[in-house]
Amino acid sequence: MYYNRDMKIHRFQPTEYHTTLGPHISVLEIDGGDTVVTTTVDNAGRDASDTEVTPRGNPQTGPFYVRGAAPGNILAVRFDRIVPNRSIGRTRAYIAPHVLEAGYVEEGRRDGAQGHEGLLEWRIDTGAWTAELLSPTFPAGTLTLPLDPMVGCFGTAPPRGQYIASDTASRYGGNMDYRGFRAGATAYLPVFVEGALFHLGDVHALQGDGEIVGTGIEVSAEVEFTVHLIRGRGINWPRAENADIILTVGNARPLDQALQEATTEMVRWLVELGLEEKLAHILLGQCVEYEVGNVFDPAYTMVCKVKKSLLESVGLELTLP
Amino acid sequence: MYYNRDMKIHRFQPTEYHTTLGPHISVLEIDGGDTVVTTTVDNAGRDASDTEVTPRGNPQTGPFYVRGAAPGNILAVRFDRIVPNRSIGRTRAYIAPHVLEAGYVEEGRRDGAQGHEGLLEWRIDTGAWTAELLSPTFPAGTLTLPLDPMVGCFGTAPPRGQYIASDTASRYGGNMDYRGFRAGATAYLPVFVEGALFHLGDVHALQGDGEIVGTGIEVSAEVEFTVHLIRGRGINWPRAENADIILTVGNARPLDQALQEATTEMVRWLVELGLEEKLAHILLGQCVEYEVGNVFDPAYTMVCKVKKSLLESVGLELTLP
Amino acid sequence: MYYNRDMKIHRFQPTEYHTTLGPHISVLEIDGGDTVVTTTVDNAGRDASDTEVTPRGNPQTGPFYVRGAAPGNILAVRFDRIVPNRSIGRTRAYIAPHVLEAGYVEEGRRDGAQGHEGLLEWRIDTGAWTAELLSPTFPAGTLTLPLDPMVGCFGTAPPRGQYIASDTASRYGGNMDYRGFRAGATAYLPVFVEGALFHLGDVHALQGDGEIVGTGIEVSAEVEFTVHLIRGRGINWPRAENADIILTVGNARPLDQALQEATTEMVRWLVELGLEEKLAHILLGQCVEYEVGNVFDPAYTMVCKVKKSLLESVGLELTLP
Amino acid sequence: MYYNRDMKIHRFQPTEYHTTLGPHISVLEIDGGDTVVTTTVDNAGRDASDTEVTPRGNPQTGPFYVRGAAPGNILAVRFDRIVPNRSIGRTRAYIAPHVLEAGYVEEGRRDGAQGHEGLLEWRIDTGAWTAELLSPTFPAGTLTLPLDPMVGCFGTAPPRGQYIASDTASRYGGNMDYRGFRAGATAYLPVFVEGALFHLGDVHALQGDGEIVGTGIEVSAEVEFTVHLIRGRGINWPRAENADIILTVGNARPLDQALQEATTEMVRWLVELGLEEKLAHILLGQCVEYEVGNVFDPAYTMVCKVKKSLLESVGLELTLP
Repeated sequence: MYYNRDMKIHRFQPTEYHTTLGPHISVLEIDGGDTVVTTTVDNAGRDASDTEVTPRGNPQTGPFYVRGAAPGNILAVRFDRIVPNRSIGRTRAYIAPHVLEAGYVEEGRRDGAQGHEGLLEWRIDTGAWTAELLSPTFPAGTLTLPLDPMVGCFGTAPPRGQYIASDTASRYGGNMDYRGFRAGATAYLPVFVEGALFHLGDVHALQGDGEIVGTGIEVSAEVEFTVHLIRGRGINWPRAENADIILTVGNARPLDQALQEATTEMVRWLVELGLEEKLAHILLGQCVEYEVGNVFDPAYTMVCKVKKSLLESVGLELTLP
Repeated sequence: MYYNRDMKIHRFQPTEYHTTLGPHISVLEIDGGDTVVTTTVDNAGRDASDTEVTPRGNPQTGPFYVRGAAPGNILAVRFDRIVPNRSIGRTRAYIAPHVLEAGYVEEGRRDGAQGHEGLLEWRIDTGAWTAELLSPTFPAGTLTLPLDPMVGCFGTAPPRGQYIASDTASRYGGNMDYRGFRAGATAYLPVFVEGALFHLGDVHALQGDGEIVGTGIEVSAEVEFTVHLIRGRGINWPRAENADIILTVGNARPLDQALQEATTEMVRWLVELGLEEKLAHILLGQCVEYEVGNVFDPAYTMVCKVKKSLLESVGLELTLP
Repeated sequence: MYYNRDMKIHRFQPTEYHTTLGPHISVLEIDGGDTVVTTTVDNAGRDASDTEVTPRGNPQTGPFYVRGAAPGNILAVRFDRIVPNRSIGRTRAYIAPHVLEAGYVEEGRRDGAQGHEGLLEWRIDTGAWTAELLSPTFPAGTLTLPLDPMVGCFGTAPPRGQYIASDTASRYGGNMDYRGFRAGATAYLPVFVEGALFHLGDVHALQGDGEIVGTGIEVSAEVEFTVHLIRGRGINWPRAENADIILTVGNARPLDQALQEATTEMVRWLVELGLEEKLAHILLGQCVEYEVGNVFDPAYTMVCKVKKSLLESVGLELTLP
Repeated sequence: MYYNRDMKIHRFQPTEYHTTLGPHISVLEIDGGDTVVTTTVDNAGRDASDTEVTPRGNPQTGPFYVRGAAPGNILAVRFDRIVPNRSIGRTRAYIAPHVLEAGYVEEGRRDGAQGHEGLLEWRIDTGAWTAELLSPTFPAGTLTLPLDPMVGCFGTAPPRGQYIASDTASRYGGNMDYRGFRAGATAYLPVFVEGALFHLGDVHALQGDGEIVGTGIEVSAEVEFTVHLIRGRGINWPRAENADIILTVGNARPLDQALQEATTEMVRWLVELGLEEKLAHILLGQCVEYEVGNVFDPAYTMVCKVKKSLLESVGLELTLP
């Protein structure tokens, strides 16, 4: 599927960041097949030394200009490696009020601090591959969790000359906060502008489904990714795959609408792969899986998944996406 | 947690069914600790011989009266065994229009039949533990899937003297169509009336997340379940557990609201288990998982899950629910 | 449209009430064309003497059996007169938390009392046709409003043998809490059972759009209504008309879905009235009006309205519904 | 409230337009108190001569830089006059599929043309103040409606350096498509950037509630507006007033969320006007009115209204907003 040439590895150290995804001046030109090794700051603009180097709000590294990318193409981005590059991570403590029953929120059963106060700190140990809660409130060792780093926000420049804040998501990607975007996943994004203009940031060392407290464990990170360009066909919503599954992403409120988008995109994909439309419906009906990306951001994210083993069992060749 | 006495096994063959959950005259009185072996007809009222013995609409077996159950208690129901008892299963073919993007539905890319026409048949083989699509449209062997039987609709009698159709769900359970309600799961339901009045039906040999075509593979089945009664405490929404996880269930539209209900119930549960409320929020924030029950029925179903291993890692003893 | 016979006026004083709408034993048999003069208790079961005579929860007067009504028919109910029959009315004070932004609710900017505490009292003066807020907190004369009595909850027995709590609404009507159901309005309801079984209750002396505090000014009342039976055609959702408009009602969550239901029903109605479907769409596109019934109850209510003068301007004869 | 100086009237003829609202280079600098007389093209970029002079997509006239406006201020914009400046208007014919029941859409009861095909033309007569449907399908005189011109899309530059497409809406205003934004209305918008940067476009000669076909009667127009600057206080969501009412606007999906936003903003406003918070809730509970702006665009618009006469009756002085 991909044309392979002299693959290059670019090492790129950002010096400025954007809190919108848009047709910013690109920081680097790359070719399909190239790999980029770069770093991201955390959601609050703090870098590997935990210094605030840029204003908060999911600052994005990039954008990267992919030579030859034109509107209507697909940009494939494989996340090769996502590794926190400092030992401190931070989360909010409390589930966001719009993720809980309104009556429960009103009862106000909180032990003092508000959701947006008092960030919690976690010790990130990339040797042990764990995150340990550090809190004056709780004894050491109260909560230690395995790392599962992911890229919270990434995407191409949106259509129509828009610059859209990196707190939301739509067809171009954006702040999907889906924990399936971990190393080994390849994301497929629609291209709306020349060069595609790929942005990324907001790495989480770990995150639950839904990002219900409004954060994962927010860290700066080193990220390695490889891009490919797919011409001659387009997509409506982000797609992705890993070794085991293919998936589609819907971004909207309410969650119902995000699910409609993701499901419709999966039907399209299966049909493109050669499945009769009716059989695509039948297969999804009995085998589809959903995963909640986020229910915190302005647009919620729902993921629709199908196992590759299932597609193979019905004779499909996975020339993706 | 459970008082153990002379556990009885009741074999009950239903002769009539209800398409509402409500304070119907009970068919059998049982005690906490007792096991019932019974059968269910499929969603269309067809029994093991594929004969329509009762009107369609998720006819329910029961209700079973649990001695001593009183409003405010919790009824625990462990599904010990769920096995299709005939070789024919049926599904709808097409994803329901309200699960797809409205514009896609309007384009009408269908190959003729409507969603509510032309049920598909499947051959259920409980020896091979598979379901094979039988369709004049597709060659034999096109789609063969492993069985994963589940109870689509079950619940206690709703509050306030209501009789509610077995196509919807709420706090009392009902038509949740969640595939996690398979053998080995124990469901916890609030009790609203004397005797709890447990109903069950609508077994699916298999179902995708969301029940997006409007059916699983609908079959009649033999179901064995064991009840226990928990007094002195109540719950707001259905809960459940299996060997690996605990889960809570929200039933509402939109899916956002179902998620709010399930999440809030999980916070309550973790606090009841002895977790500090703040720690419950922190833990859910980074570790919660969601699973979509159904997005087809009048009430959608969202499931909130936490791994038992995680609870053990923070020192909780699982005296459930 | 209506067959006119010897119209009878029935005076019916209820002695018991139901907090579900369902196939209860009827309290009176009436004929199409007949008028009933009866009373309703308030939402809390209090009667004209402000005595609690039945449990709270929108107790319903009736049901009334309409001779000849069969499933598939339409029951027309004209509210001839709705008059509070006592001088005390009650409301909740605070907007329900699910009607406000979740963040605002969390901030807890409340001056003490919770939404479900401390009902407020109002003096109902049917001579002056006003309701005056009586509250120790506020000086006399702080808030005096003109009466606008309406029936909050009414409907036929639901389909499928259901008994459904009088706090919610669906195709059969129910707790729509729409202030357009005032004297002079004629409601059209689908008939699901023999005799239609008409219930009514939950009169409000006054209510804002949306019933956002969870109550109107709750009163007992005398209600006079006249029924007619329409055969040979059915409806999908409640419809109504008054001197100036025709309207359709959707009942669901989210509000979007209620709006879809009401809009679709209005398209159907205009087509039944003889408008070409395309012209129905065109006309609604530029002239439709919406009104929010309630956004408090388990099902929200959205009303879709078209002016009769507009229909006349396009040559439609209003043989309704 | 407003500082009055030598009010200027600016006549501004645009030569270029933007299909995003953002920190574009301003076309004119004005002062608080100044009036601008300008023109807008229609949603498809067609001007007074019905020539396409700019790409489609609600092209905006402006932005206008208001001297002294700083983030946190409020920009007041009174629409003095909105008059179509050509005789041809256009609408879509069919209600958008996402505004109808999904099952109804699937049935496909359409007479051929799709919603996005075949725009309808209307003759705009600003003398007679009418719009007459011109369609080969329908005889002349089939549908003639009174004009009610409104500005569909207007707003300040959004926060955070964003450029956001003029098809959606949020706190900064945008494509609210609310028919209450007619001549005589004064809108209040939050200021996020120096100079406020006011944009406007997408005038409709007429529109139903909800913009359910996806358009009003789209026309180019002459618009006269007067701006004022309010310092020392801010707002969270657009507000407005006319001779009779004050109103707040929420922009989001689902409609429930837009309603929550508008309602919360109205509570804040009433409290700012000096009403005790509890009394604000009480008053809204029994007297609030809602109006649906649009249910077509990416963000739906709900309007929350209170009559000025009511505010006066409780002793409030209308120093707005």
